Amino acid sequence: MMKAIVSLSGGMDSATVLAEAMSRGLQVQGVGFFYGSHHNPYENKAAGDLARHYDIPFRLVDLSPVMREFQSNLISGEVPEGHYADETMSKTVVPARNIIFASLLAGIAWSEGASQVWLGIHAGDHAIYPDCRPEFFHAMRDAVRQGTDGRVVLMAPFLLVDKGAIVKRGLELGVPYRLTRTCYKPQLVACGKCGACVERQEAFANNGMKDPVEYER
Amino acid sequence: MMKAIVSLSGGMDSATVLAEAMSRGLQVQGVGFFYGSHHNPYENKAAGDLARHYDIPFRLVDLSPVMREFQSNLISGEVPEGHYADETMSKTVVPARNIIFASLLAGIAWSEGASQVWLGIHAGDHAIYPDCRPEFFHAMRDAVRQGTDGRVVLMAPFLLVDKGAIVKRGLELGVPYRLTRTCYKPQLVACGKCGACVERQEAFANNGMKDPVEYER
Repeated sequence: MMKAIVSLSGGMDSATVLAEAMSRGLQVQGVGFFYGSHHNPYENKAAGDLARHYDIPFRLVDLSPVMREFQSNLISGEVPEGHYADETMSKTVVPARNIIFASLLAGIAWSEGASQVWLGIHAGDHAIYPDCRPEFFHAMRDAVRQGTDGRVVLMAPFLLVDKGAIVKRGLELGVPYRLTRTCYKPQLVACGKCGACVERQEAFANNGMKDPVEYER
Repeated sequence: MMKAIVSLSGGMDSATVLAEAMSRGLQVQGVGFFYGSHHNPYENKAAGDLARHYDIPFRLVDLSPVMREFQSNLISGEVPEGHYADETMSKTVVPARNIIFASLLAGIAWSEGASQVWLGIHAGDHAIYPDCRPEFFHAMRDAVRQGTDGRVVLMAPFLLVDKGAIVKRGLELGVPYRLTRTCYKPQLVACGKCGACVERQEAFANNGMKDPVEYER
């Protein structure tokens, strides 16, 4: 059976990527990252819950010794509220985050004999996050292909798909969205007001349903 | 003054890259990696010595929690002896090492406001190490450019230059090669017999001089 590594943040996108990889009959291992952001522990817990739900191995890589010094409001500073399109949301960029994650996942995949790395990069994040754009993904896929001598290929099934369509696909696949975690705030119950919460709730609304996670108020 | 990050392994190539960057009037910070290989502590010490020699800040990033599980004879297993061209030397490949290093250096550069990352990738390693080839470097440079929105550019001044020519340039620049460390064996005094030692000694011999580091026997 072909082995694949799935990048598992604990959010709704990576949960759907996991379901998609499972549906294709791959032997999947989940990998998450602790990089020191305020909301990271809540995400990591959700990633572990999703791995248990799907009965796959899950491993958490601690990058916080180097990344917690990176300049980002997600790591040190206030998490802005409001829609992603607002300029303030650019403060939530974490420098080179997806470049770093994709690289480490490529190394883990090569070491584990997995030929694919599945990422949750999707169309909703293109404007603010340069390392979520198709131009980046294609260049990074090429770098990983060259740097691993063709052993590892990066996959991003939702590269051109928005969050509404991701939820639609996830509902077909039976993704347990109640286990996922999207909020940027460092609190157990999702705030409902940060850019991540706002976009998520819209994605469910666009599918005519209520987001199954609990929100404040 | 333009800021640059130099990847500082402690070997002769990265020492020469550091000297090259300094000669261009850049404000340089050195970064090294501890990834769990047998010889890593000796390399890291040399990197620190070189940073002190050039009076630049140096920071060591610990990747060993994730990379010490990677499949490589440099991390767990015997270090083969003989010339690099021999098939056994392929066991010294560390999966995706330069992909991972370049990615983290790009994130550090962005965070520190440095617009360049200088790497010691050179022509001697192309055959065995896929992530030292020009095709990889160019793809990775493109991925970093895209993923940092043009903030960070990867530099590899010796991409097409072999070790003999690197030493030649380094001698012009006054590189203190006695401080550098190349040997793959986990011992204070270089073995002189592993692939890394063999190539290094050849590089000095090609310049009609003796390598200034001490060797066994």
